[in-house]
Amino acid sequence: MDTMVGLKRTHSCNDLNKAMNGEAVVLCGWVARRRDHGGLIFIDLRDRSGIVQIVFSSDAYADIFKKAETVRSEYVLCVKGKVGLRSPETVNANVATGEIEIYGEELRILNAAKTPPFYIQDNVDVDELLRLKYRYLDLRRPEMQRNLMLRHHVTKAMRDFFDHNGFVEIETPMLMKSSPEGARDYLVPSRVNPGKFFALPQSPQIFKQILMVAGMERYFQIVRCFRDEDLRADRQPEFTQLDIEMSFLDREEILVMMENMIAYLFKETMKMDIPTPFLRLSYEDAMARYGSDKPDLRFGMELMDISDAVRGSDFKVFETVLANGGQVKAINVKGYSQIPRRELDGLVEYVNIYGAKGLAWICYTAEGIKSPITKFFSEEKVQHILSATNAQEGDLLLIIADKPAVVAAALGQLRLEMARRLNLIDSDALSFLWVVDFPMFEYDEEEKRWTAMHHPFTAPRDEDAALIDTNPGQMKAKAYDMILNGTEIGGGSIRIYNRDLQEKVFKAIGLSKEEAMEKFGYLLEAFEYGTPPHGGIAFGLDRMIMLMAKRSSIRDVIAFPKTQSATDVMTQAPSEVSPAQLKELSIKTDIVLKKPAGK
Amino acid sequence: MDTMVGLKRTHSCNDLNKAMNGEAVVLCGWVARRRDHGGLIFIDLRDRSGIVQIVFSSDAYADIFKKAETVRSEYVLCVKGKVGLRSPETVNANVATGEIEIYGEELRILNAAKTPPFYIQDNVDVDELLRLKYRYLDLRRPEMQRNLMLRHHVTKAMRDFFDHNGFVEIETPMLMKSSPEGARDYLVPSRVNPGKFFALPQSPQIFKQILMVAGMERYFQIVRCFRDEDLRADRQPEFTQLDIEMSFLDREEILVMMENMIAYLFKETMKMDIPTPFLRLSYEDAMARYGSDKPDLRFGMELMDISDAVRGSDFKVFETVLANGGQVKAINVKGYSQIPRRELDGLVEYVNIYGAKGLAWICYTAEGIKSPITKFFSEEKVQHILSATNAQEGDLLLIIADKPAVVAAALGQLRLEMARRLNLIDSDALSFLWVVDFPMFEYDEEEKRWTAMHHPFTAPRDEDAALIDTNPGQMKAKAYDMILNGTEIGGGSIRIYNRDLQEKVFKAIGLSKEEAMEKFGYLLEAFEYGTPPHGGIAFGLDRMIMLMAKRSSIRDVIAFPKTQSATDVMTQAPSEVSPAQLKELSIKTDIVLKKPAGK
Repeated sequence: MDTMVGLKRTHSCNDLNKAMNGEAVVLCGWVARRRDHGGLIFIDLRDRSGIVQIVFSSDAYADIFKKAETVRSEYVLCVKGKVGLRSPETVNANVATGEIEIYGEELRILNAAKTPPFYIQDNVDVDELLRLKYRYLDLRRPEMQRNLMLRHHVTKAMRDFFDHNGFVEIETPMLMKSSPEGARDYLVPSRVNPGKFFALPQSPQIFKQILMVAGMERYFQIVRCFRDEDLRADRQPEFTQLDIEMSFLDREEILVMMENMIAYLFKETMKMDIPTPFLRLSYEDAMARYGSDKPDLRFGMELMDISDAVRGSDFKVFETVLANGGQVKAINVKGYSQIPRRELDGLVEYVNIYGAKGLAWICYTAEGIKSPITKFFSEEKVQHILSATNAQEGDLLLIIADKPAVVAAALGQLRLEMARRLNLIDSDALSFLWVVDFPMFEYDEEEKRWTAMHHPFTAPRDEDAALIDTNPGQMKAKAYDMILNGTEIGGGSIRIYNRDLQEKVFKAIGLSKEEAMEKFGYLLEAFEYGTPPHGGIAFGLDRMIMLMAKRSSIRDVIAFPKTQSATDVMTQAPSEVSPAQLKELSIKTDIVLKKPAGK
Repeated sequence: MDTMVGLKRTHSCNDLNKAMNGEAVVLCGWVARRRDHGGLIFIDLRDRSGIVQIVFSSDAYADIFKKAETVRSEYVLCVKGKVGLRSPETVNANVATGEIEIYGEELRILNAAKTPPFYIQDNVDVDELLRLKYRYLDLRRPEMQRNLMLRHHVTKAMRDFFDHNGFVEIETPMLMKSSPEGARDYLVPSRVNPGKFFALPQSPQIFKQILMVAGMERYFQIVRCFRDEDLRADRQPEFTQLDIEMSFLDREEILVMMENMIAYLFKETMKMDIPTPFLRLSYEDAMARYGSDKPDLRFGMELMDISDAVRGSDFKVFETVLANGGQVKAINVKGYSQIPRRELDGLVEYVNIYGAKGLAWICYTAEGIKSPITKFFSEEKVQHILSATNAQEGDLLLIIADKPAVVAAALGQLRLEMARRLNLIDSDALSFLWVVDFPMFEYDEEEKRWTAMHHPFTAPRDEDAALIDTNPGQMKAKAYDMILNGTEIGGGSIRIYNRDLQEKVFKAIGLSKEEAMEKFGYLLEAFEYGTPPHGGIAFGLDRMIMLMAKRSSIRDVIAFPKTQSATDVMTQAPSEVSPAQLKELSIKTDIVLKKPAGK
């Protein structure tokens, strides 16, 4: 192997252009491809910036040519050469540097490479486990490098924005107290305090509130968080959060600040104009019109309540549902009255998944109405249904009758599914909105208790505060979610800043006074030493970058993600550790070790 | 309590000045002090920016005056008022806003406050445990707020610098593989993979090298790291590192890049010019001249070898040391020949701590030489000693004879101690330097094996690489430390990027082939797929900020530090957790729980 001694890299590949014709340059990078042709060796040299073609000629530099003959894919090279123009017929329009090539005059082979297990190029169809095992090769692919660079640019722009707006980035502890409320904590045994454990943060929620008590006024942090959950496709045991908290601002001021932040990010990193303000939709409206608290507004097809239109027919199913406090709602799938019968049957199964026992339909074809249910309705009622749903010839109505929660879930999902099938979603569109006025509590049927819908530090609307003692289910919270294209990318709230109210909320979710003090006593105490009104929000960074990069998995925007079984296949983590390590921590594992892992 | 409804904060306290005379403003903040005087109430309102005086008059707004009478220290207020000029005799030159005051016209009490357990002001003498328990009050003190804001500005400037220089900030995993080499790992039991453990990173060393293999070329990250060590005054179980790695640059290019970074930070955040380049001192020279690999160059008093000058006398102590490969070295404490005898005796005890069995001295007073050892030396030899140490009338020579390592440790510490006692250190000076050419290995007498002086991924100098099989103790590494005022603030190296050499280094430090593969197999394998030459460095952020803020403890620049027993006294972490939590993780603790911690 050679060294770079005496050579200093002058440019990245993509810096080069035809204005530099004749200039001497020194490049470093990887061999993307080598071709030999008529006494010439062509090497596509790739670095982080792009690719450029190097030409070695047997006539000009015989010894260097000889060395170039030994070069193979993914070798690491340092090349000195002169920029030259390609002849018109050899210009490569697919590459940014396609008008030029470099005539190699000096070649250093900095390292050799074995043949990689997959091609280092975009859109390559490789098993993801193989990609993760050889992540260092996967990350050499231009699209992965672009993803990581986008992530860098976005977080840089975030920090510029917050710094400019008077926010201070403050680091909060990773080794903190375990107080599992929602998800499971990752625990860290303490050696110095045997029998005791730290927890890794699920979020810095309490610390950021403590920072408001401490008078820091405007805090943000881009911070790692941890949740020991069973993993879904878009979850990771460790994830990154943009965490924000501010004092003395009301809800509306916070929402505007965050809209400006988002607009700034897209402008700075993607040159896109995001119109503000975003739509604010109440939770109630979102559930009623889209059957979801994270509605995708890139298309219409809203849910419509036809309970009044259908009421009083001979159709027992609808009548029973309505008599029991249920509702009948429909979506109008415009222009799809010719839906195959087979597909309709499939849709019935589809809505079953979301708890709906049945699906009714009305096809308004040129030949008239086709439907299994219209025979139960008078002509007048059928007209009512058609006009209530704005149905016209060619349209398809899909109808679900059930309890409101089931109608919302099933018809909301059906709306998304039909939009996908009919290709109604513009994948280039960016549809932001706020969902606001969430219920304060949800009733957990299993545990037979109220749980906080956001988290127990969320403040109720002022007008609802008094309901805490009498009717918590009726309370609305000062909570807000930011939604992008049907995905929640951020959520936050105005916080409680008063000990008495905080204690009542803990009580409402079933924490005894002792438990509340054990877990959150220091926060309750802090509230009594001059706590300003405050509120904040947290954004899921991985998901935000994923949407910006138009990827379908957050694993594509994380340098070293874990698999769905929470393992790192490259380094083989987690792993067994030595008995000595466990002994020092005063813990034992229930599992019998198959082999000791070194000393 | 009131709300801010209808009021919108217009300024921070420190924004106000006499040019705004007559302007209406809305301020929010905490009551730093209230005084009542002749029908007026004066409130010093404090926010993150500073303090301003508010005046409420019983004549002008009787109801507001009444409300102001209820206000006490640390109450949270929102005040609307008009800026007015103070009369010349009431101007307060100690406060930035001392020329003005605000005539209060509207007062909202946003929250009350109990009397804090200590005063919220600078330079207050409070037990640190109390400060940590009420950290939210401690952090309200202006000096603590300044420290956290400095930290924010420094990390912001770092990110600006690295972004501008083509570095990409990339997040590496926190849940990684345990491979304890130096310090103890913090472990995290895996629930999904029972019996297996993650480790929290001691540094992202291997991941950043993998990112170089992945072609990212220039990486940085400001990242939390963890070491489960017994804590000294300036250590924390979790600490923050500025972590950097780059490809295709040689040592000198890396040092220059880092000097530029430091100069940029000090210029941006403290308006100070740091001269570059920094001095480069070899490890050998640093040890010889200062007895330390992190010399404080804010003063002279170098160690001088007087072995040749003293050799061949009747003084048995020196002769024996020299005969056994030891050395005799001195420092010249200029102008301190009148040192009290008592203090000299204390110095003997002082050097004992560092392993020196004795301390000789020569006082060159106006009355002549005073010394317990000169009687063993000829007149000529005494003159030799004086000239070799550049001693003049009034000087004090302190002399240690021992093995080189002991002389360095004891005389190096004595040099620092004498400088402190004689107040030779300019606390405003900033003395940066590089120590380079460290030995590759140190011999661990206890474990009877070589250990890596930096870490086992450090490359040897090219000319020394061949010694790995024959004489590892003679090898010098391409390692470098950045020293500021006698403290190591950063350390790094050019890395090995070749599997064969890396395996030999693992072998040299006593790792078997199997252990090396078990722990670092993926890195060894990665080296074979086209690894560029690369190197990097890591800076201890906490310590760097501490030095910039002129604090003596890193706890003063960390928002929520742990105590020396690795606990958080505010939140009471670590804590006992529920048996159910442990069971889910398939672990048991050896310690009997005193009480279950909730459900």
